[in-house]
Amino acid sequence: ADVDGTGAAAAATATDAPAAPEGEYTTLIVERKENGVVVATMNRPAKKNAISMDMYLELQRVMAETAADPKARALVLTGKGDWYSSGNDLSNFTENMPAGGPGEMAKNAAALLKGFVASFIDFPLPLIAAVNGPAVGIPVTTLGLCDFVYASHTATFETPFTRLGQSPEACSSVVFPRIMGRARANEVLLAGKKLTAAEACEWGLVNEVFSSTDFKAQVAARADAVAALPPQSMRLSKELINSTQQAELHAVNAAECVLLQERWVSDECMGAIMAFMSRKK
Amino acid sequence: ADVDGTGAAAAATATDAPAAPEGEYTTLIVERKENGVVVATMNRPAKKNAISMDMYLELQRVMAETAADPKARALVLTGKGDWYSSGNDLSNFTENMPAGGPGEMAKNAAALLKGFVASFIDFPLPLIAAVNGPAVGIPVTTLGLCDFVYASHTATFETPFTRLGQSPEACSSVVFPRIMGRARANEVLLAGKKLTAAEACEWGLVNEVFSSTDFKAQVAARADAVAALPPQSMRLSKELINSTQQAELHAVNAAECVLLQERWVSDECMGAIMAFMSRKK
Amino acid sequence: ADVDGTGAAAAATATDAPAAPEGEYTTLIVERKENGVVVATMNRPAKKNAISMDMYLELQRVMAETAADPKARALVLTGKGDWYSSGNDLSNFTENMPAGGPGEMAKNAAALLKGFVASFIDFPLPLIAAVNGPAVGIPVTTLGLCDFVYASHTATFETPFTRLGQSPEACSSVVFPRIMGRARANEVLLAGKKLTAAEACEWGLVNEVFSSTDFKAQVAARADAVAALPPQSMRLSKELINSTQQAELHAVNAAECVLLQERWVSDECMGAIMAFMSRKK
Repeated sequence: ADVDGTGAAAAATATDAPAAPEGEYTTLIVERKENGVVVATMNRPAKKNAISMDMYLELQRVMAETAADPKARALVLTGKGDWYSSGNDLSNFTENMPAGGPGEMAKNAAALLKGFVASFIDFPLPLIAAVNGPAVGIPVTTLGLCDFVYASHTATFETPFTRLGQSPEACSSVVFPRIMGRARANEVLLAGKKLTAAEACEWGLVNEVFSSTDFKAQVAARADAVAALPPQSMRLSKELINSTQQAELHAVNAAECVLLQERWVSDECMGAIMAFMSRKK
Repeated sequence: ADVDGTGAAAAATATDAPAAPEGEYTTLIVERKENGVVVATMNRPAKKNAISMDMYLELQRVMAETAADPKARALVLTGKGDWYSSGNDLSNFTENMPAGGPGEMAKNAAALLKGFVASFIDFPLPLIAAVNGPAVGIPVTTLGLCDFVYASHTATFETPFTRLGQSPEACSSVVFPRIMGRARANEVLLAGKKLTAAEACEWGLVNEVFSSTDFKAQVAARADAVAALPPQSMRLSKELINSTQQAELHAVNAAECVLLQERWVSDECMGAIMAFMSRKK
Repeated sequence: ADVDGTGAAAAATATDAPAAPEGEYTTLIVERKENGVVVATMNRPAKKNAISMDMYLELQRVMAETAADPKARALVLTGKGDWYSSGNDLSNFTENMPAGGPGEMAKNAAALLKGFVASFIDFPLPLIAAVNGPAVGIPVTTLGLCDFVYASHTATFETPFTRLGQSPEACSSVVFPRIMGRARANEVLLAGKKLTAAEACEWGLVNEVFSSTDFKAQVAARADAVAALPPQSMRLSKELINSTQQAELHAVNAAECVLLQERWVSDECMGAIMAFMSRKK
């Protein structure tokens, strides 16, 4: 349906992806401050905040709710404990096998991913990532779709797509080269180089690095400052900055999901995931 | 008329904006050197070289005259005194109220701005900014449309759009992310971060930083070197580099002016400007 | 024929440019390692590895052969001796004058260049440049089309187009501004600034710089690591990253070659080349 990539995220979500659950959040801690700053903390510290199916849906939901809240001014994404997030929870692949087998699982996962990334592309308020520790995979690539990225000096950034037989997602295939240039983006996306916080800052993926003791306070100060600026001016300026590439990003997101759906059922990917799971046992 | 953004600056100016005055320059010092280097110095030092209505028109005029001069090889823009330029002179808004009120004033200002920025987009010779001191607002955003940018170590760079209820102009909404990456551009354009000369150089907005004692001589040496290169090769190479984005930049300029016209009559902007004016009294 | 820039390199080569010779390589040393790494070493050290007509064709040929080799995993380009390459061998212009005179020579050279650059744009495997020493002209501009660029600390990077009455090629007119920002790209492309290895690395044209004693081993380790990654994932990820700009790059390549064909018969260019040749005698 979203062939030309211009479809809104909401529409894509409504038709292609599972509905977000209502009620209490189970994988996030969501805090709404008086000044309009909303903080969503990924809350599976025992699993290094790996993104389970539920967390994918709840992150989309907190973005949708914040976008619709007239009092909201900014959304901060962060992680509980030592990690920001270790990325896609591999049990999503192994524990939720549908009747249709791997092919149907890959199709469902691609639809989920497409809606999830679309939420980042279309989020209308300042989106602030507070990377409190190591990040692997999609928590890294989605940083290119955030407006401000702050990192603790303990943070690292790694996207081991090729090693796992996969391919870039969250529009990183176009956004990362634009941020850091082609050669550096290839080191991250193709060769799987793990960046330190200092390197990610030097390459423009991260705005500022703080010591971990200072991190929460520094990020809060910056989020509060952003929230205090005239809200219409902020929202319309962000919309203006995004306007020239929004349709392109939806098209890239769609193309990336098509490729990943194929990759997930490839021998290279299945072999790499099985090797990874068996090493963990 | 310029719906698709492909109209030439000359056409846009002829139909939309006031004609440039002829005769002596009153807000600029214009010096034409033997070797083809033209230096235009903003000359309102008592007003920190704030850009009055007349200066907008005279800057456009010096660009048009230099573009048409077969002996010209490069244009240097700089400021008299300690400041490069403090940006749009707010008295443009308060002292020139037309019969049609704020709505008409905003419409006129948007037409003026669009023609002014189009002159930068279409300028055919090397355009060199010599940022001799602090710069605020449109003197900063137009740097992204210059070919070479040199800064004194006393220069600073600030675009407080959102704080004043406004939004980015001079194509900075697309040009700044391309120069420095999205996260850094947002710090400047959305959060109003003031850059030092060293930061602006590190982020690629500025080519080189010189001590203020050395500044004039260093810039002159570089302008002279550029003017000594084969002129056809220089002009055609610049045209080639610009060709892929010129139509896009005119479209972005138009969209930015539409938004600013709305912003200027918004409560957020009017309130911010009144607060600013009353603090100055 | 390639008006819209979407033509494949192969097609462009077949119709526009001379066929690559078969048999032994005469200007390159081509080494095919067991692990799929192919190393092509420009081998005219007495001429600073200047690119003769034969070397243009043999570089295209080694790219075509490697692209078609199912066992190949990556291609490394490097130079024999102290230089990476001094660029276009000017004897191509002076010793191969066809019956049709300079106009026909320029037309042939533009066709050759277009096919050569198209080989870089379309190369499907990781393309690694190992810049072992100074590089001038097209060996520099093609770096923007490589996936990984490593430099010896003895390497320098210079593109003196305007000084020689010429204009940018190898898509550098769009690729260089994207890598390093507009102001820095203009210093290189318009003003002919010679970059050190450290500067090229800081500006994102180069991934890493190594001491010359260590250079070969460090590059080999990185090429081997890339070659060891899942090959389908690598190839498809590179294709994904390139997909959004491949048609545009072919169009830019075509436009650059049109301009260069004109430049090569201009008084500015002919005068500059004659002055250069007479200085060498």
